[in-house]
Amino acid sequence: MTITQPDLSVFETLESEVRSYCRGWPTVFDRASGSHLYDEDGHAYLDFFSGAGALNYGHNNPVLKRALLDYLERDGIAHGLDMSTTAKRAFLETFRDVVLRPRGLDHKVMFPGPTGTNAVEAALKLARKVKGRESIISFTNAFHGMSLGALAVTGNAFKRAGAGIPLVHGTPMPFDDYLDGQIPDFIWFERLLDDAGSGLNTPAAVIVETVQGEGGVNVARPEWLRGLADLCRRHDMLLIVDDIQMGCGRTGPFFSFEEAGIVPDIVTLSKSIGGYGLPLALTLFRPELDIWEPGEHNGTFRGNNPAFVTASAALDTYWTDGQMEKQTLSRGEQTEAALRSIAAEHAHAGAGFRGRGLVWGLTFEDTERAAAVCRRAFELGLLVETSGPESEVVKLLPALTVTPEELDEGLRVLARAVRETD
Amino acid sequence: MTITQPDLSVFETLESEVRSYCRGWPTVFDRASGSHLYDEDGHAYLDFFSGAGALNYGHNNPVLKRALLDYLERDGIAHGLDMSTTAKRAFLETFRDVVLRPRGLDHKVMFPGPTGTNAVEAALKLARKVKGRESIISFTNAFHGMSLGALAVTGNAFKRAGAGIPLVHGTPMPFDDYLDGQIPDFIWFERLLDDAGSGLNTPAAVIVETVQGEGGVNVARPEWLRGLADLCRRHDMLLIVDDIQMGCGRTGPFFSFEEAGIVPDIVTLSKSIGGYGLPLALTLFRPELDIWEPGEHNGTFRGNNPAFVTASAALDTYWTDGQMEKQTLSRGEQTEAALRSIAAEHAHAGAGFRGRGLVWGLTFEDTERAAAVCRRAFELGLLVETSGPESEVVKLLPALTVTPEELDEGLRVLARAVRETD
Amino acid sequence: MTITQPDLSVFETLESEVRSYCRGWPTVFDRASGSHLYDEDGHAYLDFFSGAGALNYGHNNPVLKRALLDYLERDGIAHGLDMSTTAKRAFLETFRDVVLRPRGLDHKVMFPGPTGTNAVEAALKLARKVKGRESIISFTNAFHGMSLGALAVTGNAFKRAGAGIPLVHGTPMPFDDYLDGQIPDFIWFERLLDDAGSGLNTPAAVIVETVQGEGGVNVARPEWLRGLADLCRRHDMLLIVDDIQMGCGRTGPFFSFEEAGIVPDIVTLSKSIGGYGLPLALTLFRPELDIWEPGEHNGTFRGNNPAFVTASAALDTYWTDGQMEKQTLSRGEQTEAALRSIAAEHAHAGAGFRGRGLVWGLTFEDTERAAAVCRRAFELGLLVETSGPESEVVKLLPALTVTPEELDEGLRVLARAVRETD
Amino acid sequence: MTITQPDLSVFETLESEVRSYCRGWPTVFDRASGSHLYDEDGHAYLDFFSGAGALNYGHNNPVLKRALLDYLERDGIAHGLDMSTTAKRAFLETFRDVVLRPRGLDHKVMFPGPTGTNAVEAALKLARKVKGRESIISFTNAFHGMSLGALAVTGNAFKRAGAGIPLVHGTPMPFDDYLDGQIPDFIWFERLLDDAGSGLNTPAAVIVETVQGEGGVNVARPEWLRGLADLCRRHDMLLIVDDIQMGCGRTGPFFSFEEAGIVPDIVTLSKSIGGYGLPLALTLFRPELDIWEPGEHNGTFRGNNPAFVTASAALDTYWTDGQMEKQTLSRGEQTEAALRSIAAEHAHAGAGFRGRGLVWGLTFEDTERAAAVCRRAFELGLLVETSGPESEVVKLLPALTVTPEELDEGLRVLARAVRETD
Repeated sequence: MTITQPDLSVFETLESEVRSYCRGWPTVFDRASGSHLYDEDGHAYLDFFSGAGALNYGHNNPVLKRALLDYLERDGIAHGLDMSTTAKRAFLETFRDVVLRPRGLDHKVMFPGPTGTNAVEAALKLARKVKGRESIISFTNAFHGMSLGALAVTGNAFKRAGAGIPLVHGTPMPFDDYLDGQIPDFIWFERLLDDAGSGLNTPAAVIVETVQGEGGVNVARPEWLRGLADLCRRHDMLLIVDDIQMGCGRTGPFFSFEEAGIVPDIVTLSKSIGGYGLPLALTLFRPELDIWEPGEHNGTFRGNNPAFVTASAALDTYWTDGQMEKQTLSRGEQTEAALRSIAAEHAHAGAGFRGRGLVWGLTFEDTERAAAVCRRAFELGLLVETSGPESEVVKLLPALTVTPEELDEGLRVLARAVRETD
Repeated sequence: MTITQPDLSVFETLESEVRSYCRGWPTVFDRASGSHLYDEDGHAYLDFFSGAGALNYGHNNPVLKRALLDYLERDGIAHGLDMSTTAKRAFLETFRDVVLRPRGLDHKVMFPGPTGTNAVEAALKLARKVKGRESIISFTNAFHGMSLGALAVTGNAFKRAGAGIPLVHGTPMPFDDYLDGQIPDFIWFERLLDDAGSGLNTPAAVIVETVQGEGGVNVARPEWLRGLADLCRRHDMLLIVDDIQMGCGRTGPFFSFEEAGIVPDIVTLSKSIGGYGLPLALTLFRPELDIWEPGEHNGTFRGNNPAFVTASAALDTYWTDGQMEKQTLSRGEQTEAALRSIAAEHAHAGAGFRGRGLVWGLTFEDTERAAAVCRRAFELGLLVETSGPESEVVKLLPALTVTPEELDEGLRVLARAVRETD
Repeated sequence: MTITQPDLSVFETLESEVRSYCRGWPTVFDRASGSHLYDEDGHAYLDFFSGAGALNYGHNNPVLKRALLDYLERDGIAHGLDMSTTAKRAFLETFRDVVLRPRGLDHKVMFPGPTGTNAVEAALKLARKVKGRESIISFTNAFHGMSLGALAVTGNAFKRAGAGIPLVHGTPMPFDDYLDGQIPDFIWFERLLDDAGSGLNTPAAVIVETVQGEGGVNVARPEWLRGLADLCRRHDMLLIVDDIQMGCGRTGPFFSFEEAGIVPDIVTLSKSIGGYGLPLALTLFRPELDIWEPGEHNGTFRGNNPAFVTASAALDTYWTDGQMEKQTLSRGEQTEAALRSIAAEHAHAGAGFRGRGLVWGLTFEDTERAAAVCRRAFELGLLVETSGPESEVVKLLPALTVTPEELDEGLRVLARAVRETD
Repeated sequence: MTITQPDLSVFETLESEVRSYCRGWPTVFDRASGSHLYDEDGHAYLDFFSGAGALNYGHNNPVLKRALLDYLERDGIAHGLDMSTTAKRAFLETFRDVVLRPRGLDHKVMFPGPTGTNAVEAALKLARKVKGRESIISFTNAFHGMSLGALAVTGNAFKRAGAGIPLVHGTPMPFDDYLDGQIPDFIWFERLLDDAGSGLNTPAAVIVETVQGEGGVNVARPEWLRGLADLCRRHDMLLIVDDIQMGCGRTGPFFSFEEAGIVPDIVTLSKSIGGYGLPLALTLFRPELDIWEPGEHNGTFRGNNPAFVTASAALDTYWTDGQMEKQTLSRGEQTEAALRSIAAEHAHAGAGFRGRGLVWGLTFEDTERAAAVCRRAFELGLLVETSGPESEVVKLLPALTVTPEELDEGLRVLARAVRETD
């Protein structure tokens, strides 16, 4: 593929130095459809990145697009704060009927503002208010957001340093399989809780991702999650599952924690909940936790009605039966097989892989290899990003709607990129 | 107007108790156009609320709508994180050419996530990073957002209590005309800065709204703003103007600080910057402050491309010449005249009013009167909300595109609502 | 006076750079009696510093000395934590009978550790525990101690910077006469408390010195103190008077707040309470505030029994009648007359003075003059130190037992030192 | 022994509920000598508590007493802030010649205020200032003091709760042998430090006790301490050894860390450094860390000259040769043998013991047994206290000057108290 030098000047002169993805993918994208993006010169890119998990149903999914266009054309409410609207009612009813009830969940739904970090901020506020305690337990390599509340429970030192103040009230515990693989789960965490002399401020809640996407595709085992839920119950801590990236089917079932059979007290959703990449976020919690006063937390864009429309359409289209989950697990097996083969081919480079559903990570002994693979993949027309504290993991997040052929193509390009960076 | 009992059940059973606007306006809105919303029974409501300032160009503005539909129909990028896209380039160029250059501003543009609180969090982070200090000065009755960083510089005690942790690193100073009207501006603030024994942690920055919308429509005089800018300069503090509600023409000029002739170091924009009520936010700062590392602050929805499209269309349509500013000031005069008349009529109830451009507040001696007026206005088909720490101010935020007739109608309904709550 | 070069080598090589008084008074003191110190070469120094207020009864006061020697000789308990001892019982009974009962106070007595900062830490802990709030109001130029709790309510920027962490949970308010002398007392403070939108975290307590010794000999008027006590009562804040330097008769009455006729909720005492310069501190509080659990605050040296012995002897000797108070006020008048004369003589240098009882400050337009005066006074055999945020005040703290002749002598030396630094 | 009901009324009516030791030992002590205290009725108590470690040389040690009386009689300086005095010079020279130089230490000496918590506050301030970081690592069951800085690195939940604010900037790590005895030392700590995504704020320093006295007589192995020192070196963290209770010979050598062969960056000393139970504390640090500004940390009683006198006498008497260390280790063996025998006799009650030098702990399966043993011991004329987070350890701290006969007697009383609480 030949890439004409794109006109990036306004980005380079006007946009802040904080910009990042555009640096790794130095082209100007113009349109997109399904699993492909197209730049302004018409080059196609196969997308194994999916808006960092915000595009589980692919770009401009035609079913959602039709619903959105219809809504806009008929002058449906575009912006509604938390006024009652027909679009919001439809979403709430659909979410209840398609997501909550079939899973036996009676959680209340809060619209905390349309981004993941808003959802996490609301979850932490509520947990602290309910328990009357300040301290939150998070996990090594957690990623929960960039506003100060969420950042304090995020692991990445570089992101944390951006706060400009010391981040407090959060304490990290080891995520599953963090240490030597020999140490019993939660031995340290539980000892701290049991010991009145441990120095740990009694936590209001624990916040966890079932798979740490930004943290390096670290996968918690179902039994570890069950152990954690049990620990929370025994020690009067609320369990918050941050399902912003792993929810909405990314790991197979709608919620990533379903496989473990646990029921979190609080769940955050964002990214793909809107379905079309439009900003939307939810904070769900057990009804007995709903001690909010009216307006105690708010936000101008918490009623992003176009996103309600696409969200409802996505749930109606993909989640009324078990097809999507089955398909994701099947695509996951296809991915795993390809990664196993890549890893075997590059055993000399210490290649390894891990994942679940349609989130996978590929690692190498040399921590800088991942970035090289992503760079080469871009040149070959495949979008993949790195993750992990040292950007040492190639992270694969194809759309859940990817076809087996597209998946195969992307994995072959990936294999080539690995080979060509050896 | 007769209102059939709307079906609110799913809101009442499933949505969290935190919901607020829907309580004051107990109907289900379905569509909207210009200055009117329509509920599902077809009742029309004249909107003097404008999405809390997010709909300066009215609901479903046809020019913006056309641009948005075209973009969606042609499969333009819907979600792009901070990838370079043609929609983003167009926005940046338009913003530069229409907003920045004509005002002699060379600020860099950051997309901090699509909500106001994201923009404030980014502004505070950057100020702290640049100055290497933690402390921020805010003002009495300030409102900057609900995530922990922004909430710490927000005045409202009820919102602050929601944090669940003690909010620190922020110190309030008196806003313009806060005390007895006799005390020289900044006498306390400057004395604290001058006195090495004052106990004030040296601030990194000052964050201010030129008109405090949520705080009760408190209007800072231009000379007070100039005094503040001067104080910041003399004491090495960055000046952050939070123009989220008052920017985008609400007070007349594009930026609300233009009248004062000051140039803030950092500016936050959100609400109406997207034009169509779609989530978008900007943090602007002088180029020498752009010390961000790539990715040091990020957010999934920071590249809300449909909002770039409507934002560009709004700038192109309304801000290439001085018409919009003139029109807003003219509508403001019309509003002021009507409010003067209402206040005169209700002098016995201590009625007063204040405002600038198209943001106005109406107050009464009895602090509960404002809520009563808003309730009655709703019954009469007019949407207005209260603001202020005790919800003691009727706040008027008509669309900037309101016609003189609509404005007149709404002000007459308001007058009637005041009369009928006497 | 000729001063042989003293052997200061071990101080300069072994003691930390943090040492301070020894730098201004470069000699090695060996013994002391009454208002005089003697260095190892036998030079006498008249002491108008009194151990920063810890030696109100002079050095090695013979009555106290006898009691102390007797106690030590008979093997009285030297160290007792908070065990009951005969020396402690005698002190408690004496303190009750001589200090508390005659003043109608029913405060409980806590031994928080033997230093002022311990007493302040205990006071703040208790106030926070009682009120369930974190925030404390302090005043500009307050000085309360060097441990982190006390330092957070101390004004001096240089001392605060030593913390190495951002000091939070404290907010400064203007001390009496801090601004232009026109602004009504507490107008800002009360407005913040009244306004639910002010952004001030509701305070648990207010901590105040009636005269700010370290802060520059700033004297609060009785009516200001009464206003403050009234404000605390009306706004449910505890009033803590830090009487560590101004208590034990420094301003005339035993407690410095007696003149104002107020009864603080909590009082801290240290410095001269031990009488002989031995470490001792008390935290006093209204009985209904005594919600401490046994051992919730402790400290190894809180039962410094030798100090109990000298403390009891001092109370018995000086405080069973009103003589000491009268004498202090008389000495104060003598001091004031001399300072008035000095100020008149140096009106061209903007000389001013202020004080109460036996704490006085002398200031000059040139903020560096105070240090020069102290240096010259030392050469002339008089020990006086500076205070204030810029060390711009010559602070006089003679022993309360100073004779009129000694006082006269010292004031004449001071006058000469002022003259010789013109 | 028969105990007449002592007159405790003033303690019960006037002293705060916070008092603690006096509750367990309900008598009024009057005088003391060597290893014995006597109450006002003349009953003798053998003291295995030693002022919580502040009386290593016994009560009213005759050599120290003579020096103290001489000093007071000749009107030596009683109170000197940080003025140079002959007593202070003598102490500094003695400390240098007897303690520092023979151990090859070139640490600077700071007098931070006369209590342990002052010494810890100064150590933490300096570490933060030197490293420019806020975070401190402490250990489970650490005890460092009651002022806010020291309390934040103290483990006990009950003490921490007394703060009334959330304690932050400290993170606990597992002390030696805290978990299952299988987990490699520092595996968790080092992983957090190595992983840029761990969420641990980079620490300025680590603070540790070599034996946790208050925490339950938990003894760190020399190899664990060496591992810790090595970890600090490799990760640019300062190592602070809090030797307040374990220093001054309690474990055998003068400093408790000598056995491990490590050299801490900062050392705190208090309790027995004054020798006679008079308040005194030191903060020692490597000369390159001495970046204090003059007066940046201070304290009224930091120059407690009578304590300098007894401190010098103690060093001169006991530490100029290796006798004291040998004797302590020998007494330790005697103690250990007795405890082994007690534990063997009470194996059915899960009795265990641990300790080093002359600090020993005795534990039982039933955590309430320790308190019962201490109560019975008191009735039998022996003073011992409990320690540990649940007061589950009988802690033995006899004077280092205890005779073998006294030690034997006390251990026999202890054995009887254990038997009689079976």
